[in-house]
Amino acid sequence: MSAFTAVDVIRTKRDRGVLTDGQIDWVVDAYTKGLVADEQMSALAMAILLNGMTAPEIARWTAAMIASGERLDLSGVSRPTVDKHSTGGVGDKITLPLTPLVAACGGAVPQLSGRGLGHTGGTLDKLESIPGWRAALSNDEFLAQLRDVGAVICAAGSGLAPADRKLYALRDVTGTVEAIPLIASSIMSKKIAEGTGALVLDVKVGSGAFMKSVADARELARTMVELGGAHGVRTVALLTDMSTPLGRAVGNAVEVTESVEVLAGGGPADVVELTLALAREMLAAAGLPDADPAAALADGRAMDTWRAMVRAQGGDPDAPLATANEVEVVLADTDGYVAEVDAYAIGVSAWRLGAGRARKEDPVSAAAGVVLHKRPGDPVRVGEPLFELRADHAQRIPAALAEASRAVRVSATPPQVAPLVIERIG
Amino acid sequence: MSAFTAVDVIRTKRDRGVLTDGQIDWVVDAYTKGLVADEQMSALAMAILLNGMTAPEIARWTAAMIASGERLDLSGVSRPTVDKHSTGGVGDKITLPLTPLVAACGGAVPQLSGRGLGHTGGTLDKLESIPGWRAALSNDEFLAQLRDVGAVICAAGSGLAPADRKLYALRDVTGTVEAIPLIASSIMSKKIAEGTGALVLDVKVGSGAFMKSVADARELARTMVELGGAHGVRTVALLTDMSTPLGRAVGNAVEVTESVEVLAGGGPADVVELTLALAREMLAAAGLPDADPAAALADGRAMDTWRAMVRAQGGDPDAPLATANEVEVVLADTDGYVAEVDAYAIGVSAWRLGAGRARKEDPVSAAAGVVLHKRPGDPVRVGEPLFELRADHAQRIPAALAEASRAVRVSATPPQVAPLVIERIG
Repeated sequence: MSAFTAVDVIRTKRDRGVLTDGQIDWVVDAYTKGLVADEQMSALAMAILLNGMTAPEIARWTAAMIASGERLDLSGVSRPTVDKHSTGGVGDKITLPLTPLVAACGGAVPQLSGRGLGHTGGTLDKLESIPGWRAALSNDEFLAQLRDVGAVICAAGSGLAPADRKLYALRDVTGTVEAIPLIASSIMSKKIAEGTGALVLDVKVGSGAFMKSVADARELARTMVELGGAHGVRTVALLTDMSTPLGRAVGNAVEVTESVEVLAGGGPADVVELTLALAREMLAAAGLPDADPAAALADGRAMDTWRAMVRAQGGDPDAPLATANEVEVVLADTDGYVAEVDAYAIGVSAWRLGAGRARKEDPVSAAAGVVLHKRPGDPVRVGEPLFELRADHAQRIPAALAEASRAVRVSATPPQVAPLVIERIG
Repeated sequence: MSAFTAVDVIRTKRDRGVLTDGQIDWVVDAYTKGLVADEQMSALAMAILLNGMTAPEIARWTAAMIASGERLDLSGVSRPTVDKHSTGGVGDKITLPLTPLVAACGGAVPQLSGRGLGHTGGTLDKLESIPGWRAALSNDEFLAQLRDVGAVICAAGSGLAPADRKLYALRDVTGTVEAIPLIASSIMSKKIAEGTGALVLDVKVGSGAFMKSVADARELARTMVELGGAHGVRTVALLTDMSTPLGRAVGNAVEVTESVEVLAGGGPADVVELTLALAREMLAAAGLPDADPAAALADGRAMDTWRAMVRAQGGDPDAPLATANEVEVVLADTDGYVAEVDAYAIGVSAWRLGAGRARKEDPVSAAAGVVLHKRPGDPVRVGEPLFELRADHAQRIPAALAEASRAVRVSATPPQVAPLVIERIG
């Protein structure tokens, strides 16, 4: 018989106490094994959300989640390993150009990604719009591709941090996602278990992000940087703006297309700026400070690695992508400047068009999404296209149009455009 | 498709918002039907525990729990109906003498009771130590006995407030029992659904009670008195001390024996005092202010009603009760006065002896329990018995002895003994 009970652990946190190492190790392990019930863990998660955790509690919780599964050994990879994680945003396709770019500069990027839920898109959903591409790799396939190509984007295997897998699904349906200790330990347990040597975090702030305030984002970033350091993973974080969507494309195939434009040396300025900023951080963290990612974009090396990476997972980088049956172009009804494009509303609009899912088991549309013709700061004249909506079925349009129309605001004078990279923590 | 989702309701309370009537009606109904999962309700319960509820929220929540099942119609009973509820304590056998006493004075008492869990005993467990007595009655049997005898103590049928039945079991395993809004709505939904016209609440305060402070007990009492009034049930509450066990007997058969002593005109002074105080409140609330419960105890009318009540449910009031195989008498090792007998520790001791249960499905021992030979204020001499422990098996004794020994403190000077009835609210 165990010395611990779920009710005692819950009561400790409910009454603003500090959980002991023994309590944390026991409750995470017992939950993974099904000895602590979902209804007990959700009560504990709510108590953690409302009463918080100390830094040592978060560190122990993260270690317990890592210990619930296997930890990959990437020591057989000759290049330095470095990964990136974004806390999630709208139009955030950065992983797509960034992963092959860093690999083209000498790093090995073991990028285990997820799917979208709600208004934020998922990297795997985007890549699955490439015909033939598959997200699921065995550990052996993953390691071989990391050695050969230097770049892998795939689904995390079920052996990594199974406690987190179970807890994440539970938090999603119990209103307990937005707890900094639980977000930080969820992200870091997976990244540490994946075996990367270094990690760069893109912590999003703004309407389209989980963290709405810089203070919350900073706390989350600091917590994760500390956790990485404690586990021997060199970790730095950039706080970046997510009040506006990244780039012009929000959806699945449309974001792949935009990513390929960046890899071809073009693409929207903000996507290029963030890709390069994160690439420089990753290369520095990997011990390759002299690499020049801008050159690798310009000379086609990053594109070559992208094509090799897509092909290694069965995808055809030259295949045409899905196109939408229904396209609704919205025109400006006044002269002026685009003052605001709200990331959250555009994310919801793309979700309503079919680009995202309401439940885990829902399919997503490859072709659906929003394309912005104007971004904040751009001048606009009456009759010019502001944005367009794409969907497989016409009945998706009206609700998405209402959301997107609310998102875009035109004013008579040019707005102050906020900087993309807000702060560096590391 | 419903306009509500569990996650939205949870988030509202998590973020310190006020739940709408529609949200409350929906979530209680959907939980009863299994459309809201246990893990969602437990997260909501924790958010309610930590963030509270307004008076209108508690009223609506209670109404929704009543509406989840049937409401009994006691209008066919010619006598005024009045019930009592205790929030639970150690040695709290008051329901046993009180129910027939009030009936003997002209009231009809529809007492739906529960079983013990943890350190507090359950009225049904106590009565089941009477050979032949059965707790389960059909609605028809319940109504017939209420009409004929005027006194019923039985288990609540599954049709009354099924939402509460489900939620109570959930709270018990998720550390969410101690929330005043949930305690108040749980008690009052069952009592209102049971159909009583008036209700007297015995709200316990002290180490052996759920409420450790007078302030918490007062808040709970006021909340319940308001809820009763809002549903047309005349409700008053007494705050009573539960830092010391009630009477000398703590267990099942031993508490029946002590109750019969009270009905015979004897018994410990505190048990008689509280029985009479609650009887006077119940009779006044029932519109029978001139009834004289002390006379009904003295002249045997209460005992006659007790015997009729026990017989109506198959019990033999003259049958000998179970006796314990193992009795351990603890003697005083110093002269002085009993300064303290801690209710919680005595409750735990009786539980360890086998009088209570750790899990709902556990059996209880009829014979096990603690008998106090001395109570706070009593003088004691070296070698006199302080208390005795009774159990079916000798291996139950050592842990129970450790608890009980901690509970009893002897001092050189007489202690200040606190009053039993602290406050009246109504």
